[in-house]
Amino acid sequence: MDQYLKIAIEEAKKGLSEGGIPIGSVIVYKDEILGKGHNRRVQNESVILHGEMDAFENAGRQPASVYKECVLYTTLSPCPMCTGTILLYGIPKVVIGENSTFLGSESHLKENGVEVVVLNNRECIEMMQNFISAKPELWNEDIGN
Amino acid sequence: MDQYLKIAIEEAKKGLSEGGIPIGSVIVYKDEILGKGHNRRVQNESVILHGEMDAFENAGRQPASVYKECVLYTTLSPCPMCTGTILLYGIPKVVIGENSTFLGSESHLKENGVEVVVLNNRECIEMMQNFISAKPELWNEDIGN
Repeated sequence: MDQYLKIAIEEAKKGLSEGGIPIGSVIVYKDEILGKGHNRRVQNESVILHGEMDAFENAGRQPASVYKECVLYTTLSPCPMCTGTILLYGIPKVVIGENSTFLGSESHLKENGVEVVVLNNRECIEMMQNFISAKPELWNEDIGN
Repeated sequence: MDQYLKIAIEEAKKGLSEGGIPIGSVIVYKDEILGKGHNRRVQNESVILHGEMDAFENAGRQPASVYKECVLYTTLSPCPMCTGTILLYGIPKVVIGENSTFLGSESHLKENGVEVVVLNNRECIEMMQNFISAKPELWNEDIGN
């Protein structure tokens, strides 16, 4: 498996072990991890700390020249908020663990020139299927439903 | 002036007095302020706490039924990240102080059925013009340039 997706999955599992939503993300710059994170809706009572947003925050303030050479890994297809953040900072490539339990704004990413790779990783799919079955209300809250 | 835009401007000024970027936002539900906030890039070393994001965070975890009856006020046209967050939570109406110093993703909001009102308020314009002249690097960083 891709080493960075593996780290994103570890982040997702950390979130689950904290009682949270199991979605993790890693931002990689020239084969170095700039930031990683996981969804913190439950843990921080946050409506903006999706996994990708937490990774951006943990990556810190970076110049545009750095963002433009990054790859963002996420265990799940990015929602409109995370998509907008990817576009704001000009991240050129996004690697997605799976998009079968939730299809985010991938078409909007592609329309704006972002390379999108979907791995449809079995571990990511099972993790989200199990979570959505166990806590559907929490999941719906997280995607604004 | 619209009373809520006035409060968004007060938030922006608070940000400026803290050494930050002067953009403020208010989320209103049935004529009641649910949350307000301002850009915290400098204050919190945050790359995700734009004014609108800070207002969402301060509004707390709300059910979809509440978001769907909210109006978001912001002193400046919303960037792709804040636009995505507005779409994620299904905010139906956005009132924008001005879009002459920066034009955000208003077309994307409209394409997705959001009502967009642009006031082109003179105080908002002058506040951003002065800030951009004084700290162009910080401003460019905030919009991913």
